[in-house]
Amino acid sequence: MKLVELTVKGFVDVLGSDAPAPGGGSAAALAAAMGISLTKMVCELTIGKKKYAEFEEDMKLVFDESKALQKHLLDAIDEDTEAFNAVSAVFDMPKETDNEKAARRAAMQTALQGAAESPFHMMKLMVNALEITKRAIGKSNTNAASDLGVAALNLKAGLQGAWLNVLINLSSIKDAEFVAQHREEGETLLAKGCALADEIYEEILKVV
Amino acid sequence: MKLVELTVKGFVDVLGSDAPAPGGGSAAALAAAMGISLTKMVCELTIGKKKYAEFEEDMKLVFDESKALQKHLLDAIDEDTEAFNAVSAVFDMPKETDNEKAARRAAMQTALQGAAESPFHMMKLMVNALEITKRAIGKSNTNAASDLGVAALNLKAGLQGAWLNVLINLSSIKDAEFVAQHREEGETLLAKGCALADEIYEEILKVV
Repeated sequence: MKLVELTVKGFVDVLGSDAPAPGGGSAAALAAAMGISLTKMVCELTIGKKKYAEFEEDMKLVFDESKALQKHLLDAIDEDTEAFNAVSAVFDMPKETDNEKAARRAAMQTALQGAAESPFHMMKLMVNALEITKRAIGKSNTNAASDLGVAALNLKAGLQGAWLNVLINLSSIKDAEFVAQHREEGETLLAKGCALADEIYEEILKVV
Repeated sequence: MKLVELTVKGFVDVLGSDAPAPGGGSAAALAAAMGISLTKMVCELTIGKKKYAEFEEDMKLVFDESKALQKHLLDAIDEDTEAFNAVSAVFDMPKETDNEKAARRAAMQTALQGAAESPFHMMKLMVNALEITKRAIGKSNTNAASDLGVAALNLKAGLQGAWLNVLINLSSIKDAEFVAQHREEGETLLAKGCALADEIYEEILKVV
């Protein structure tokens, strides 16, 4: 059964259980999925309102992009746990002969790269979601200002959480080029996204 | 049907729909419920392990408190939407006569105070959850360090998000004493919780 098909209570229960997965990666993805969904809701509460008619076209674009990102971030909840489970599966591989040991080491490195790529991919989605959320500032229903703020806060928590999950996997990856590239690009994404989230939060604090 | 009984996908869908509720308040509560659940998971992955035997008693206490807070924060998801719905219900009250208008105004103020109290109550739970999460630092399974970091990040996002929801409701409340008290106490909770979350994140960044 997919994680997104569990009830909210069921998901939170399994997250808090002794099962190592789902863990922080899937929680970061759900935080971000909630974030972009709030941006989408704010679009829905704005589009068609006379007061915001001049921003109608902009907000329709924000709506469309929010909707697509909502789907991708929901998918990321399960993808991250699958990537984690692929690492766990390697522990069950035989390690008697030298050949078996070598195959196990190689499989582990491949699985760890997958487990790092998963939150790294999320980070790109989250930064994109923050860019889109920022476009709604000043053009959307002010009654829902706090919702746009929560969107940015949840996206930021998701982004920083995904970054911790990239880092913990990079620490076991031996391919120096892979590590250096992901660390550098990840730091750039993190800085960009956090700055966007902080700008949105500060703007929202002025109007609530 | 309760929100926590929806599927994860169903909850995210309704959050992003044109229905004004659930909104940022319930999303903040779920972010925080995921946060404290991760703290609970880290306890479960630590308790009983020889390497962490000296912290066994501390971690059992953290586990017990995480479990209780998980329940309270899950409850807060629905409570916040109920408090919001109580405000919406006032809009349906009659407003023909002066008596009706006065009754409607009074009911609105009561409902708005409820809608401010809901995220205010959450903030207390979230600061408590951050205090408890901090106690696990240095005493818990280092393989799950990133999970403890995501716990703190989600709790911080929840706390700041709840604060935005307190503020947007306070802006329509006429009882100056209520407003001043909640603003002052809320700012104290916000500062305390954000400092705790930042300390935890910085500690985790050193070890992942």
